[in-house]
Amino acid sequence: MKTLTFGEMMLRLKPLAFERILQTNGFEAAYGGAEANVAVSLAQLGHHSGYLTKLPNNPLGEAAIGTLRKFGVDTSRVLRGGPRLGMYFFEKGNGARSTSVVYDRAGSSIATADTEEFDWPTLLDGVEVFYFSGITPAISKSLELALKAGLEYCQANQIQVVCDLNYRGKMWQPETAQKVMAELMPFVDVCIANDEDFEAMLGIKAFDGDLSHGIDQIEDFRVGMQEITKRYPNCKTVASVLRNIHSVEQSDWMAILYQDGKFYETPTHHINVMEGVAAGDAFGAGLLHGLLSGLDGQETIEFAIAASVLKLSVSGDLNLVTEAEIRAAMSKGSNARLSR
Amino acid sequence: MKTLTFGEMMLRLKPLAFERILQTNGFEAAYGGAEANVAVSLAQLGHHSGYLTKLPNNPLGEAAIGTLRKFGVDTSRVLRGGPRLGMYFFEKGNGARSTSVVYDRAGSSIATADTEEFDWPTLLDGVEVFYFSGITPAISKSLELALKAGLEYCQANQIQVVCDLNYRGKMWQPETAQKVMAELMPFVDVCIANDEDFEAMLGIKAFDGDLSHGIDQIEDFRVGMQEITKRYPNCKTVASVLRNIHSVEQSDWMAILYQDGKFYETPTHHINVMEGVAAGDAFGAGLLHGLLSGLDGQETIEFAIAASVLKLSVSGDLNLVTEAEIRAAMSKGSNARLSR
Amino acid sequence: MKTLTFGEMMLRLKPLAFERILQTNGFEAAYGGAEANVAVSLAQLGHHSGYLTKLPNNPLGEAAIGTLRKFGVDTSRVLRGGPRLGMYFFEKGNGARSTSVVYDRAGSSIATADTEEFDWPTLLDGVEVFYFSGITPAISKSLELALKAGLEYCQANQIQVVCDLNYRGKMWQPETAQKVMAELMPFVDVCIANDEDFEAMLGIKAFDGDLSHGIDQIEDFRVGMQEITKRYPNCKTVASVLRNIHSVEQSDWMAILYQDGKFYETPTHHINVMEGVAAGDAFGAGLLHGLLSGLDGQETIEFAIAASVLKLSVSGDLNLVTEAEIRAAMSKGSNARLSR
Amino acid sequence: MKTLTFGEMMLRLKPLAFERILQTNGFEAAYGGAEANVAVSLAQLGHHSGYLTKLPNNPLGEAAIGTLRKFGVDTSRVLRGGPRLGMYFFEKGNGARSTSVVYDRAGSSIATADTEEFDWPTLLDGVEVFYFSGITPAISKSLELALKAGLEYCQANQIQVVCDLNYRGKMWQPETAQKVMAELMPFVDVCIANDEDFEAMLGIKAFDGDLSHGIDQIEDFRVGMQEITKRYPNCKTVASVLRNIHSVEQSDWMAILYQDGKFYETPTHHINVMEGVAAGDAFGAGLLHGLLSGLDGQETIEFAIAASVLKLSVSGDLNLVTEAEIRAAMSKGSNARLSR
Amino acid sequence: MKTLTFGEMMLRLKPLAFERILQTNGFEAAYGGAEANVAVSLAQLGHHSGYLTKLPNNPLGEAAIGTLRKFGVDTSRVLRGGPRLGMYFFEKGNGARSTSVVYDRAGSSIATADTEEFDWPTLLDGVEVFYFSGITPAISKSLELALKAGLEYCQANQIQVVCDLNYRGKMWQPETAQKVMAELMPFVDVCIANDEDFEAMLGIKAFDGDLSHGIDQIEDFRVGMQEITKRYPNCKTVASVLRNIHSVEQSDWMAILYQDGKFYETPTHHINVMEGVAAGDAFGAGLLHGLLSGLDGQETIEFAIAASVLKLSVSGDLNLVTEAEIRAAMSKGSNARLSR
Amino acid sequence: MKTLTFGEMMLRLKPLAFERILQTNGFEAAYGGAEANVAVSLAQLGHHSGYLTKLPNNPLGEAAIGTLRKFGVDTSRVLRGGPRLGMYFFEKGNGARSTSVVYDRAGSSIATADTEEFDWPTLLDGVEVFYFSGITPAISKSLELALKAGLEYCQANQIQVVCDLNYRGKMWQPETAQKVMAELMPFVDVCIANDEDFEAMLGIKAFDGDLSHGIDQIEDFRVGMQEITKRYPNCKTVASVLRNIHSVEQSDWMAILYQDGKFYETPTHHINVMEGVAAGDAFGAGLLHGLLSGLDGQETIEFAIAASVLKLSVSGDLNLVTEAEIRAAMSKGSNARLSR
Repeated sequence: MKTLTFGEMMLRLKPLAFERILQTNGFEAAYGGAEANVAVSLAQLGHHSGYLTKLPNNPLGEAAIGTLRKFGVDTSRVLRGGPRLGMYFFEKGNGARSTSVVYDRAGSSIATADTEEFDWPTLLDGVEVFYFSGITPAISKSLELALKAGLEYCQANQIQVVCDLNYRGKMWQPETAQKVMAELMPFVDVCIANDEDFEAMLGIKAFDGDLSHGIDQIEDFRVGMQEITKRYPNCKTVASVLRNIHSVEQSDWMAILYQDGKFYETPTHHINVMEGVAAGDAFGAGLLHGLLSGLDGQETIEFAIAASVLKLSVSGDLNLVTEAEIRAAMSKGSNARLSR
Repeated sequence: MKTLTFGEMMLRLKPLAFERILQTNGFEAAYGGAEANVAVSLAQLGHHSGYLTKLPNNPLGEAAIGTLRKFGVDTSRVLRGGPRLGMYFFEKGNGARSTSVVYDRAGSSIATADTEEFDWPTLLDGVEVFYFSGITPAISKSLELALKAGLEYCQANQIQVVCDLNYRGKMWQPETAQKVMAELMPFVDVCIANDEDFEAMLGIKAFDGDLSHGIDQIEDFRVGMQEITKRYPNCKTVASVLRNIHSVEQSDWMAILYQDGKFYETPTHHINVMEGVAAGDAFGAGLLHGLLSGLDGQETIEFAIAASVLKLSVSGDLNLVTEAEIRAAMSKGSNARLSR
Repeated sequence: MKTLTFGEMMLRLKPLAFERILQTNGFEAAYGGAEANVAVSLAQLGHHSGYLTKLPNNPLGEAAIGTLRKFGVDTSRVLRGGPRLGMYFFEKGNGARSTSVVYDRAGSSIATADTEEFDWPTLLDGVEVFYFSGITPAISKSLELALKAGLEYCQANQIQVVCDLNYRGKMWQPETAQKVMAELMPFVDVCIANDEDFEAMLGIKAFDGDLSHGIDQIEDFRVGMQEITKRYPNCKTVASVLRNIHSVEQSDWMAILYQDGKFYETPTHHINVMEGVAAGDAFGAGLLHGLLSGLDGQETIEFAIAASVLKLSVSGDLNLVTEAEIRAAMSKGSNARLSR
Repeated sequence: MKTLTFGEMMLRLKPLAFERILQTNGFEAAYGGAEANVAVSLAQLGHHSGYLTKLPNNPLGEAAIGTLRKFGVDTSRVLRGGPRLGMYFFEKGNGARSTSVVYDRAGSSIATADTEEFDWPTLLDGVEVFYFSGITPAISKSLELALKAGLEYCQANQIQVVCDLNYRGKMWQPETAQKVMAELMPFVDVCIANDEDFEAMLGIKAFDGDLSHGIDQIEDFRVGMQEITKRYPNCKTVASVLRNIHSVEQSDWMAILYQDGKFYETPTHHINVMEGVAAGDAFGAGLLHGLLSGLDGQETIEFAIAASVLKLSVSGDLNLVTEAEIRAAMSKGSNARLSR
Repeated sequence: MKTLTFGEMMLRLKPLAFERILQTNGFEAAYGGAEANVAVSLAQLGHHSGYLTKLPNNPLGEAAIGTLRKFGVDTSRVLRGGPRLGMYFFEKGNGARSTSVVYDRAGSSIATADTEEFDWPTLLDGVEVFYFSGITPAISKSLELALKAGLEYCQANQIQVVCDLNYRGKMWQPETAQKVMAELMPFVDVCIANDEDFEAMLGIKAFDGDLSHGIDQIEDFRVGMQEITKRYPNCKTVASVLRNIHSVEQSDWMAILYQDGKFYETPTHHINVMEGVAAGDAFGAGLLHGLLSGLDGQETIEFAIAASVLKLSVSGDLNLVTEAEIRAAMSKGSNARLSR
Repeated sequence: MKTLTFGEMMLRLKPLAFERILQTNGFEAAYGGAEANVAVSLAQLGHHSGYLTKLPNNPLGEAAIGTLRKFGVDTSRVLRGGPRLGMYFFEKGNGARSTSVVYDRAGSSIATADTEEFDWPTLLDGVEVFYFSGITPAISKSLELALKAGLEYCQANQIQVVCDLNYRGKMWQPETAQKVMAELMPFVDVCIANDEDFEAMLGIKAFDGDLSHGIDQIEDFRVGMQEITKRYPNCKTVASVLRNIHSVEQSDWMAILYQDGKFYETPTHHINVMEGVAAGDAFGAGLLHGLLSGLDGQETIEFAIAASVLKLSVSGDLNLVTEAEIRAAMSKGSNARLSR
């Protein structure tokens, strides 16, 4: 197993036929979660990719594992047991109505797992890259401590650590988040920071909170990215997605990679959005693919943003696209109207 | 019961999966109708909202009542009996193909109801606002007479009357419509006049019939709105929605309120449309909410147009949105690209 | 065109997923009607089969015609125009709950057609067998008169007339039905009489009204069938289906043919029922197939009952089975547990 | 409000198209719960029926309330707030595979409600009959205490108390259940005891645990029913359903009412089962209907069992049938093969 | 039969609910194929339209024929037999992801048909216009030879020949295609050449291969169209569609007709695309309709392009629109934003 | 990898909602095949189970592999490439209509694979049990030869060989089958022979061809089973399923194991059938599980038949049940009415 990602996996329930929760009488079911999505993307791109979480011993837990396996993820290190699978209800917006989500993840098997259940020497055996997002330490104190123990093991064993900051305002407040991340960032080699992550997770000002003109603030993002590497010298690589969101349906996306003191920036993709979820995870996986495959900085960040915008075209949390499709979306002439 | 709306409710049948009627082998079922939609919106916004119609004693009538009840409408004054529930087939357009509708409402329970079935002192007991649209008197002569009797009762008992003119060219011709409305308008306190309503229902020229540039004719609308208050001095409030329709998918919407001699106008919403039906009813309900809640003119009309454009994002005839969602759509920064 | 069947075709709406009308939010759509079903069966069995009705000029009328054409029926003599397509809501029962139906066929294009719209010399040009059911004259006085004119033309032109008595208590009362049928029976060459048809349509007692033991009354049926040929000497062939209905799911079916003074009887099929509709039409078509193909009496009635019980296995009103499948169901060893 | 039922309401998720949870990618959604089901049945039968629970302030809570309202239940006393709506996954069995259920109800809004949130004088204002099942005190200690306070209020105010013992082995063990019920039974006027309820809830032996021959143990049931009235003299009415279960699809059902020292017993219904859930709630509602409507003992218990077996024909937790349908199922000659 | 079109018909399988093949567990089924689509369009427009292919003797072959019949096509000349129905899997793209197709048409009944199975004097009896596309000769050598024999019969019998060049890179290479077409073009009276057809099928340079700016190369198209008439003097009419494709969702379409030395050009339609398939077949049918109905050059080409863009709004391969809808899309003010 | 099964995997397409192929407009999609089904069952029962086939490099091939992986099968030895995935259309029967199947498997990737593509030393590395069915050698001569080479490797390397004879009359005739099996049987250690397998595959008379009374011929089966071990002394274990089929819905199942000269027989399961496919594969996997787990003869055969009848309750080709569910079905008191 080359990569291991660590986090929570949930059942996603989405009303049938574009309905609202209040009116529907059925839900599409899918299984996903930030780090699970990354693991699936890596497996789809041909890497030996593993995933670590805890799932209940019931058919829902089986179905979650089955989904991972179906798309090629190694699930041999998943813990089993605990009371339930977390879930969330996903109501896709359109026009004047925003997408909205009802979380129901409290008390899940992973959220109630004990720190000691994670035997890191075994779990990380043979792993070269360890990936987590800022969601994982927000789940519970036990998980935060487990994660820290894992990171210490990584540092002691030359396992590269990648962190997508991924701030979630519904899970914790900036003050707590910053305190926790201050403990964890010294272990991070590669950091992904988007939008409000800079301020909420690290206390760095780089984004004003208005998604409708992230790209317009590109200079602030550049400064913020540099600031991360200054504060955490171990972190030599920072990547960010910048977006101008025009509507639920239309947005512009580009990305920056700051690596070893140099910026690499992509052209802007003007995108029609089918489902605006999990594109950040697709970006993280694309970035990792570049790093794992030895692509240069420019190709890496272009690959990552192309993977990310492709996710917006796929239903569900998983970025079920091929490397060839990502390469096509990178090139001029693809259906993404790429403006250089 | 604070508000009572009066009209016809129908079963709406929409082909599955974006198909045409000719090719589908199934229909989504929903229940709605102009005044029923208003009643549901008012209930969703927290008002004690009642609805008056006549529905058959069969499972379809039960399902129609159940839909109203589900969304909080008081159905205790609905009459039961008669031969059938009216219905219509709704075929959503896209691209170069317009949305089209096959009506099948002739001979319905409400259309065949007798004038005397409506015992207004009982039906309007405790009601403060009575709402109808121009569809109601177009259904049958008996209904026109019943409505007039109701309006007379309202006038005698200080019940406020709101009328959405709502011209339907498939139900009657301008000549008849104008003759009937000339009888009814003297009872109306608040009037909603959109697009062809001015001319077809009242004989006032304010709109040239081309939906692709209603907003461009704003000055004509202003003059037309004033003209209504001149002709019918009891009608001190007139509201209108103005639209530029670019395509089945894209349009611009704004609204004007003329109240006590003063105009209040909203910014323009540039909207991606999911289902272009019943937005006028959502507007009427939003307007009523403003009037019932004591909002000022500017806030009222901005609330009404935001409610209206939100409806375009919801499947079915009912505007299943919350007050918080409407308030969000009113503010800059919502997903509706609001241009001030 | 060898055969022409004449009657009403409707849109059938059935709740999705075994739900009740009250709870469903969608309907499966299918198009059918007694005589249309017969026409489809005949076409599926390789006959040049035509159908006569009147259908509205709208997409529902098109879809009805398209359904007939899809399954090979010649629709060139269908009249077009009038207000609407009749329809019915079909709620399949199970266990302790009976199947139920909500009719909504009043005011349909065929029900409002005028007697003179039917130009029989043209409509019956080249036809060898004319088929109608007792539903057709029950639709309207105009249709009754049109039908009678058609039958007179048949008699004058040696066109064989087949009538499935098909009493429908929701459409007319026995007294009226008997009066009308007394006028029409003298033109009928082949008569299908089931269950309550004997008494309600012809005033002959042969069945006590209890579907749970029709087969147990076989002797009464035999007497009734003979009585028909005595009263109407032109009618030399009578066929009947006899059933013991154990539950919505389970029943026994057999049939008798009385032809030229001789009885032919089938073994009993013990059947699991998927949809208990239109099996009578399938029987009529099977009978016609036997007569048209020159099968002997025994083979004809065995073919007809096998066609009939196969219909119980097909969703919708149409008996979409092949001659080979009917032949297989006739033989011992088929999945129908045939008890000889 | 004449009746008030008190318990937990859940979202039920059932795999589409007869699939297993492990293989499905979608779920039918329905809302129900033992006491909510009773409330719906009572409303469908024309009673002013209220329901008491606590539901979260989110679209799922709204949808649960909407479902109750749709079918006529008064929801004005429902408490709002708390973390989540309980839910369960329902996997219908067939053939050799049993129906199975995955509960996910821990931490729900009702389960985490405080005892003091229930202001009984207000909640029971005007109520004549109060109904709960043995599930309610099993949910939490707080709820057990709240329930007891409610029962004390009932006793003090001459409100009749009905209890369906409804033992749930997944929620508590017999030892605890018996201890709790010993506290509550002295307040119960009418008791429903089925199958394992006698022993698990009350420590009375009346059933050997084998569902395949409950009816065969009828004498033990009679003794057990009498024993209840002996132990709890306030409880003058006991009703029980007895079943022989042949398979997932086939079973026999009958019921006994023991009232004021006299037994009333129904004939046996031989039933084909569509969904074997919530038939006990339908029975309880049927029983209450008999008591509220002044039916005599024999008619009451026959009505109750007919209501119960009809539920087996309806998809979902709610018994969406009419009084006329129940009356039809009571009579010989209905599709339920009734053996007297 | 006035027109006969000749080619392959396939089962199209499209994942449900916008899913990818990899993730779906169901497919929408539709039947179509380039020349079958043309035949359906012609029948919908009121022409006596026939179709020629070979279909297997199984339910899939029946369903394909049924689809044609449903929409009015004469299938009396379809050959039956052979091993299988060709099929293709259609995965609709969106946003950055292109639509993709998995063909599975090898070994189909038509592909394995022998040249001698086509008895042209019988098949073309009474036909006035014979239509094929460049797909037909690409299917097999036998079909190429059969086609050539058919064209020779047409020439000898004054049957007009229409060919849509329709290059398919997955079926053959330009070198082969050009060699074959050089044999067939001398028989063609009317030729449709789009995009890469000029070069790949005829070796004429008129389009640079980039779909994002076909309209920008209009002058090259004009030259290419003239060149066709120069090389093949029998071909007096050439029509082409030009497109600027902005994204999967958005594109601009216009068309040119070159007839008897004169160019007729349409305004540009700016179109929102629902399904970007079979619009070329809709164009071909629109063109034929113009020619068959005696419309002038300008009206013909405007009708054809309007028919074509309407197809983009219909699900499936068939252009299920009416002449009235095409006429509406031709006019300014339709929902297609027409820029003159 | 402990077990390896070898055969063809197909896409199964089943009409939606119980429709016939002729009438449906959609198909449920599932992936399966005799030996793949066995592999999935073994993986579900906890064995390290591998599968060998050849699948195309397209999304359908990916989806087939994904299905196997989802349910735990090791797919690392699957060959990739070739033209297409085989498929079949599955039309479930009911009542008088039999289940029917349209195969479309010619020209698949596995059917066109070369003998030399199978590098047995690598493919069988570490394998302890090799499983194939009689379908595999029927696919192509190349596959027959490849299989024989594999069997020779097994014999040389002490890999146990299990063969389910599985005669398929649509793939080859008894004469050919017997010739081929005569070559292969000498390598087989464990043989499963059902129904017509005895005669068609081995030329042994044990079953008269009438599925309606297989159990009634138990003595013939016993003799046939012994005869196999006499002819092929290496084959010390023979297992057979015996069935009385009453209808599509109802049947009786039991099984016999003949091992080392001793018979072990199960009680009869009276079963309601949901989908009568792949129960033989479930039986084979259950048998293997018994052999691999060291169960005794009686427990093994009871486990196998219980696994088999459970499959009849699961939609699709895969037996998605747990060991606990199989154990429950083995016991008296489960929902399968077990008659000892």
